[in-house]
Amino acid sequence: MKPFSDMLSHFSEATTSEIELLKQNIYVKKFKKGAILQHKGGLNTYLYFVNQGLLRSYSLDLKGKEHIFMFASEGWMITEASDINFPKELVIDALEDTEVEMIDRKIFVELYLPLTLKHNKFNPESLFKRISVMQKRIIMLMSASAIERFEHFIETYPNIIQRVPQKMIASYLGITPEALSKVKGDRAKNK
Amino acid sequence: MKPFSDMLSHFSEATTSEIELLKQNIYVKKFKKGAILQHKGGLNTYLYFVNQGLLRSYSLDLKGKEHIFMFASEGWMITEASDINFPKELVIDALEDTEVEMIDRKIFVELYLPLTLKHNKFNPESLFKRISVMQKRIIMLMSASAIERFEHFIETYPNIIQRVPQKMIASYLGITPEALSKVKGDRAKNK
Repeated sequence: MKPFSDMLSHFSEATTSEIELLKQNIYVKKFKKGAILQHKGGLNTYLYFVNQGLLRSYSLDLKGKEHIFMFASEGWMITEASDINFPKELVIDALEDTEVEMIDRKIFVELYLPLTLKHNKFNPESLFKRISVMQKRIIMLMSASAIERFEHFIETYPNIIQRVPQKMIASYLGITPEALSKVKGDRAKNK
Repeated sequence: MKPFSDMLSHFSEATTSEIELLKQNIYVKKFKKGAILQHKGGLNTYLYFVNQGLLRSYSLDLKGKEHIFMFASEGWMITEASDINFPKELVIDALEDTEVEMIDRKIFVELYLPLTLKHNKFNPESLFKRISVMQKRIIMLMSASAIERFEHFIETYPNIIQRVPQKMIASYLGITPEALSKVKGDRAKNK
């Protein structure tokens, strides 16, 4: 995926005022490791494109336990898809010092997306791809063994396995850290 | 959601040949209860819009156990989002005698969707909504109690709870039929 600002350079036919308005609404921002970009219960909804660093989103259950929804490293976009007027369910935080491009979802839907549609920069197959990742995740959570989930994790996030603590990978997979250790041990033996 | 053919009537500016080509590729088809619309490992990818009846999609794990991915009753669309060139992972079958409108995904992406974009019939928020349902499902599978999952099921599928066997609802929720019975009992007591 490309940063929001990158797309704008291709809109040669768009009027300068359209581009300028959008540029004013795309913020480049740096967050320190540990910073919270989206709070649970908050009302703002931004789309974050990661230029450099690593973000994650997670939910908290009634016991206060974290369940990791997704990671987003360089080139990924992260947001919460739920209704724009509802309090947010996910927390988004920085696992490393991170630089993002961010845009308000309302602006994205009302100004940015129509412009990409108008200039034929919208690729529906990229959408099916995103939905496909979620579909796979649901099937995995329902029916896959710990080892299958781990293989799929490595495939989805090849460049972050060394960058996050094991307990976060276990949380993403929905297994215990002990089960993850066992999977990794079995996997090493079979190589 | 509206059937594919319904959309076409709004494209007054589209040329007759564009509309005609699309009409030839939208099939209205009836399936008997128990019929399989998409086989595991098959290569065709259709989008099915349900006019009347009830479809479901499910995955099979290595032990041959079914895990229900989704249901689709009147007004729902169902498909598999994974790569169009890959063998399909989900089975789609009819839980009742069902009438659908179906369109090949390739045709949908190459002809139908560009036309809806061109005529501003594309609503990005409907997309966020679909993604939001999957996001919620993932969070639920990871962290919600059986009773929360059941409440969410009723909210998502208000009109099908009486139409499918309890064991299918349990399969969708990722819990045992016994756990589902307990949830329903507890719920009845608290009303």
